[in-house]
Amino acid sequence: MVDDTDDLVVRTPEAFRRAGIDARIRHRVSTVDLRRRAVEVVDLDEGRTYWEPYDHLLLATGARPVVPEGIDPGVAGVYTVKSLDDARAIKLTLQAAPGAFVVVVGGGYIGVEMAENLRRTGRSVTVVDRNPTLMAHLDPDMSALVTASAIRLGITLALEEALISLDAPGGVVRGVETDRAHHPAQIVILGLGVRPDAALAASAGVPLGAAGAVHVDEACRTGVPDVFAAGDCADAYDLVGRRHVYQPLATHASKQGRVAGLAIAGRPARFPGVTGTSVTQIGSSDVSRTGLGEREIRALGVDAASAAISSTTRVGYMPDSSSITVKLWGERGSGRLLGGQIVGGAGAGKRIDVIATALSAAMTVEDLLGLDLAYSPGLSDTWDPVQVAARVLVRDL
Amino acid sequence: MVDDTDDLVVRTPEAFRRAGIDARIRHRVSTVDLRRRAVEVVDLDEGRTYWEPYDHLLLATGARPVVPEGIDPGVAGVYTVKSLDDARAIKLTLQAAPGAFVVVVGGGYIGVEMAENLRRTGRSVTVVDRNPTLMAHLDPDMSALVTASAIRLGITLALEEALISLDAPGGVVRGVETDRAHHPAQIVILGLGVRPDAALAASAGVPLGAAGAVHVDEACRTGVPDVFAAGDCADAYDLVGRRHVYQPLATHASKQGRVAGLAIAGRPARFPGVTGTSVTQIGSSDVSRTGLGEREIRALGVDAASAAISSTTRVGYMPDSSSITVKLWGERGSGRLLGGQIVGGAGAGKRIDVIATALSAAMTVEDLLGLDLAYSPGLSDTWDPVQVAARVLVRDL
Repeated sequence: MVDDTDDLVVRTPEAFRRAGIDARIRHRVSTVDLRRRAVEVVDLDEGRTYWEPYDHLLLATGARPVVPEGIDPGVAGVYTVKSLDDARAIKLTLQAAPGAFVVVVGGGYIGVEMAENLRRTGRSVTVVDRNPTLMAHLDPDMSALVTASAIRLGITLALEEALISLDAPGGVVRGVETDRAHHPAQIVILGLGVRPDAALAASAGVPLGAAGAVHVDEACRTGVPDVFAAGDCADAYDLVGRRHVYQPLATHASKQGRVAGLAIAGRPARFPGVTGTSVTQIGSSDVSRTGLGEREIRALGVDAASAAISSTTRVGYMPDSSSITVKLWGERGSGRLLGGQIVGGAGAGKRIDVIATALSAAMTVEDLLGLDLAYSPGLSDTWDPVQVAARVLVRDL
Repeated sequence: MVDDTDDLVVRTPEAFRRAGIDARIRHRVSTVDLRRRAVEVVDLDEGRTYWEPYDHLLLATGARPVVPEGIDPGVAGVYTVKSLDDARAIKLTLQAAPGAFVVVVGGGYIGVEMAENLRRTGRSVTVVDRNPTLMAHLDPDMSALVTASAIRLGITLALEEALISLDAPGGVVRGVETDRAHHPAQIVILGLGVRPDAALAASAGVPLGAAGAVHVDEACRTGVPDVFAAGDCADAYDLVGRRHVYQPLATHASKQGRVAGLAIAGRPARFPGVTGTSVTQIGSSDVSRTGLGEREIRALGVDAASAAISSTTRVGYMPDSSSITVKLWGERGSGRLLGGQIVGGAGAGKRIDVIATALSAAMTVEDLLGLDLAYSPGLSDTWDPVQVAARVLVRDL
């Protein structure tokens, strides 16, 4: 486990410097001048401003947590969840107020993970979300399984409620107002996701793409020569939906960073795109998805069918076998696999990777039936649950 | 858990009959007459023999355990491991002789699984194998990890020893003789794998293929019109090695059975082939492989390179994170992925499925780097270990 949040720093400025990289922390770039090929830098400690020229520029400005209109994140007791500083502040407040009521606004990955961990410390936790289920990026039938897990953990759910305002007289939070109720809270966590921090790029005239992120091609090149972007400030090509999307995930950021670095160094490198894979855990369940779900399929107007099956993570007679639900989507006519979602016990989550790999290879649902997936009674059933779902779905395509 | 071996019967004769299938157990087919399109059946209980005509014939005669030349499996205390009857006999003997010394001949999947389970009951267990490591179907560096696990379990290893004869005066075993030692044993388990039971097909003139199994195409058709074969008596096309192979595994058998049934019913069905995926567990480790390993790559004369890396099943700071070793093989020049092997803690085994899926899609090692695999600190590292191995291997191709 981690005793100190500093232990979560993957690479320190010193480590960069030892690698021969001139890492300047507490320096903010205020302007990018594409014509002059230079950036204006503010040294925050010294207070001085200077221009730094570049041959290649990489924009890696990341993302900012979403704070709804009219909500002041500076109110005491209100926190976003993005940086290590956020984590330190939340930790201090929890230590100072062990019995505090917590309201988590947003029932996506971050909100649910925060809610579960706070609940496990014995606190009263309420999750406010405008959707009828938690994790509404899953299809309703699958997110209902997650919602049930949260209820079993003793988390109070305020679903189909929208945050209106903070109840914070004198700048100290004591509750949240939704369109339907007042929820008392000494601590409010805003877990509403992030938006790309692309202001610098936008003001310089670098073209933006999906969700206002910097638009990049498969070599992480922006629309401006010698300017690259990677990570949470950039968009990415969606191999399944065949359009650019904004998915601020560590996996994409790591790959884009590698590819941008290679491309800047003049070496061949290509980030083919994403399929939209994510996974988390709630209670004893893994929850994962990849590809398109019901919402995206409708938005794109794809003629599709789905099948959801329940099976076990191991052969039923083995100890520690637990239930697993797999849902697949396929395109009618072509039979093309479009996406999948999995909710299940230990070992279920990473099984989404088979579907993600199949999506990268543009496989059909029929192709899944032929896959040579590993079987041993203690690790799977003879027909892998993904293939059981494919066997049902293939009849409807 | 399973209290009665009968509970392991997946489908009883009665279940077949309820489904409208005329299942005749204790009936042996002694002859297939391809010209007359009929089989000669011996009713073992009634002792009578009769001819049964067919429109389509499916050969599903399975496999027989390998018994070395000169070894009499009828000796008291000597067992093969193939049928439920074998399991019942072993169980009875163990109950009657709780302190018996056990020698397991053969250090493959079956031998190692038997050895571990017998060792866990407190018995003295010795595994005899002619190879320098257990599970020699893995590359030597990977099988060494398995061998170390067996030693930690307290299993005695007699490696690089070949079974010569049983020491069984009066028809009761009391030890085995190898080319290097005598090992005392009241129970001897022969875990030397299986051979196809293709005698009926061969005598009828149905062409045989890999390892003497019935040769089948992708619709499970044999070389004779209207005669099909499926399961442990049949061979299968290897998608990676691009030749037919004999791999008697439950996964292939299930898929071939489905495809043969559909094909006989005149419906389109195709079993594209196998990549050779298998997984087992020893101690707290999962052990899996898919595609070609060092031995097959050498035999096929492929110009290949490999990379093995060690990582963790989860982000290192998470509880229950354990080590995982991933080895990949790729073809020089083309960059084609050839195979992979994984040894690691809980959750490691089924990760082989990503490599198996990539092999089915004929991906390159470079393609693995682009895969959108699931990440969450409790379930994986940001760079999946399979991709870490690919990142190292891609430099050598």
